[in-house]
Amino acid sequence: VPDTTALDELAGLVGPAGVLYPGDGLDAYEDPARGAPGRARAVVRPTTTEQVRTVVGWARRHRTRLLPQGANTGLVGASVPPPDGDGGVVVLSTERMVHGLEIDAANRTAVVPAGVRLSALDDAVAADGLWFPIDLAADPTIGGMAATNTGGARMLRHGDVRRRVLGIEAVLADEGVTVVDDLSVLRKDNTGIDLSSMFIGSSGALGIITRVAVELARRPAQTTCVFLAPTAPDRVMAVLDALDDGLGPLLSAFEVMSAESVAAALAGVDGLRSPFGAPAPPELTILVEAAGPEGTDALLLDAVAVAVATGAATDAVVAPAHDAWRLRHALTDGLRHGGVVLGFDVSVPRSALAAFRSEVRRRAAVELPRATVADFGHWGDGGMHCNLVFPTGAPPSPSEHGLARELVFGTAVERFGGSYSAEHGIGPHNADWWRRVTPPGNQRVVRSLRTLFDPLGVLGHPDLPY
Amino acid sequence: VPDTTALDELAGLVGPAGVLYPGDGLDAYEDPARGAPGRARAVVRPTTTEQVRTVVGWARRHRTRLLPQGANTGLVGASVPPPDGDGGVVVLSTERMVHGLEIDAANRTAVVPAGVRLSALDDAVAADGLWFPIDLAADPTIGGMAATNTGGARMLRHGDVRRRVLGIEAVLADEGVTVVDDLSVLRKDNTGIDLSSMFIGSSGALGIITRVAVELARRPAQTTCVFLAPTAPDRVMAVLDALDDGLGPLLSAFEVMSAESVAAALAGVDGLRSPFGAPAPPELTILVEAAGPEGTDALLLDAVAVAVATGAATDAVVAPAHDAWRLRHALTDGLRHGGVVLGFDVSVPRSALAAFRSEVRRRAAVELPRATVADFGHWGDGGMHCNLVFPTGAPPSPSEHGLARELVFGTAVERFGGSYSAEHGIGPHNADWWRRVTPPGNQRVVRSLRTLFDPLGVLGHPDLPY
Repeated sequence: VPDTTALDELAGLVGPAGVLYPGDGLDAYEDPARGAPGRARAVVRPTTTEQVRTVVGWARRHRTRLLPQGANTGLVGASVPPPDGDGGVVVLSTERMVHGLEIDAANRTAVVPAGVRLSALDDAVAADGLWFPIDLAADPTIGGMAATNTGGARMLRHGDVRRRVLGIEAVLADEGVTVVDDLSVLRKDNTGIDLSSMFIGSSGALGIITRVAVELARRPAQTTCVFLAPTAPDRVMAVLDALDDGLGPLLSAFEVMSAESVAAALAGVDGLRSPFGAPAPPELTILVEAAGPEGTDALLLDAVAVAVATGAATDAVVAPAHDAWRLRHALTDGLRHGGVVLGFDVSVPRSALAAFRSEVRRRAAVELPRATVADFGHWGDGGMHCNLVFPTGAPPSPSEHGLARELVFGTAVERFGGSYSAEHGIGPHNADWWRRVTPPGNQRVVRSLRTLFDPLGVLGHPDLPY
Repeated sequence: VPDTTALDELAGLVGPAGVLYPGDGLDAYEDPARGAPGRARAVVRPTTTEQVRTVVGWARRHRTRLLPQGANTGLVGASVPPPDGDGGVVVLSTERMVHGLEIDAANRTAVVPAGVRLSALDDAVAADGLWFPIDLAADPTIGGMAATNTGGARMLRHGDVRRRVLGIEAVLADEGVTVVDDLSVLRKDNTGIDLSSMFIGSSGALGIITRVAVELARRPAQTTCVFLAPTAPDRVMAVLDALDDGLGPLLSAFEVMSAESVAAALAGVDGLRSPFGAPAPPELTILVEAAGPEGTDALLLDAVAVAVATGAATDAVVAPAHDAWRLRHALTDGLRHGGVVLGFDVSVPRSALAAFRSEVRRRAAVELPRATVADFGHWGDGGMHCNLVFPTGAPPSPSEHGLARELVFGTAVERFGGSYSAEHGIGPHNADWWRRVTPPGNQRVVRSLRTLFDPLGVLGHPDLPY
């Protein structure tokens, strides 16, 4: 635990405004979006890459754990200090690293300081008709998005963060406190071993990401949404095929929502409308978005007509894009309003989604009869938010919680070759599964990389499994 | 240099058909697509990942350099043994690693043994209406494509190899000869530090890639090509803007060819037609491809009409896709037929391409008056094949060759923030530039990764800079 002298030294390095103490109110840094709050010794807020180097050097001298934090919107606990820790962890917040955003509109690229929020980046490039097309319900920092490789609802069309990052600048905790300097804004640059890739999805364990070079996209001229009801869960992929045939790359989202999720949103969140008018939503509701040039809407309607004509879907309604996404983004809040939610973010090969869903429901009915399964997800890329909802006032017992994890993760990973963390990365909440299913050889290699980049072990959450 | 006993041991490990000797005729393994032939002590051809492990173990015991080789189509010398070497290098050819291709058509993914050729993969998935949409003039192996992260002419739409790889299996040369096992076919799988990414673009220096999990794409229902003549080189990006507006993601290629390149192809390759009918091609010819659902062709013609109406282009001709690409892929052969070609594969931010081109031509006229500049490239993603052509029978002197490299690479990298290797990776041909422009911190990190994964230095080309 760094003592007062050490913290005074830190304040001397980054300035008095650069360090916050427990007395200053650290809730925003200690309270996670999901899970129990943590406890930090202090929060250090550098403004530049050079200040990050100085802070990392300080952490090495004092053998103090630095926990990198962006907007603290992560869902696996990786950005908050341990709740039962000794208070020795210092949070390194990138929130003041927001100056020096560089935009090349003609090249459609930007070099973004780590602390810039997704919404701020989008605002800065809107006048050029551009955006960073990762769609999320939260508003994370670009550095945090890179550290967790967020995906979101438009990955089908625009890829995840990994596919849009052109380069990264990061500060290592090795002996020289090396700055990895790879901020190219080139789309084609194959000049040897790619260091930037290593930091994407690393949960901050290999280095502190200080700047990110990203490829932007042009905002589409036209965006149109349709709700579809598949005739049965195992016909969802047939609907997707019809849309692929008719839209090709103009298909920009394909989200599937269970009746339980939609009903919870309609009951718990004001101002939403039932997609098909009827009070009870169908077993599954598909939200389709097509985005592209003028004429995209006509192609979408043709494709939807084919899906209905071939018997894959029974009902189709054009919805204003704003309303459609409002419903989609209200699902999580709706479920929380109606019960105690155990949320699991998994993926399987998209060919296996219907079977996975059916197996989870079959097992849950037997093994967790008190829980309701309320799933929704990104069926176009195999991602599913699989929620088990318990009654308000009768939350899951620890043993039910354990059973639920085993049921959902076990079915995804062991039965269908899927992933126990599709979008949220690795943190204390799922570290046990990393240890359990990562091949031993891979574990050894990852740990040796950690030792190479951070030999004293001062970076990242102390409960990461590597 | 491994002696006869060591080679006998090797043959014992992989079987007699698994090792070839100089007397067997090694031209296919020693003659590169560009540059001087090399000399190998032997060629070893394992068939499975387990055999690769055995071979790497052998190389460690005998301190013998193993040079991984796919189809030997690379252009920077990384896949051929040194021409003036001591003959001690053993080529590890993946050509027999072709069994066990796994296709999941509904998931649109495949797990591909490293030695499978691009054309063979495309043939295997054609019946399902799928392809691996990286367009190249050569027919490399999938393992080689991953090791060099090839891009090609449709990168604008489909990304480079890095953006399409879901996972990799690779054999390290560390003490345990670890197999990194990361062959997920999941699109969303953010479970910690991503080992697969490290091998992409590594030129085989970190490990031998044995299998690659890739995301396939649906073949488009419609593919339409148009030739356009921009009113001036600095209006090319205005043409691209008009096409982006009208096509969005349906724009699948945007290739720009100089008059010198087109004229050389028309003169040197049989059966080609001049894009605009006239015998002399315009200063620049743009090849546009749009690919997508039925109706894509109409959107393309509308967008082309806008490009012409706004004065960005003077002429536009619809071309059969086959003919259009035949011309495009004939440029290299045409140039070789008409002279001695020094070819450089560079990139700059796409906003700077016209200025880069103009500066190269200005300097070449002064510094290399015997050379003709004949460029063509992927303007949509900033890539350019910048060729300096000398008269047949009067090839460039070594000093002219050096001047040409300095002119093209120096202008790209130092003047425009570009890359000296856009698509071909790192090899003996450009190792000096890696040493020259890679930041010293990055160089140290790359070398420490090499030491971690291959502590005895037995993997990769001996003249790699790391």
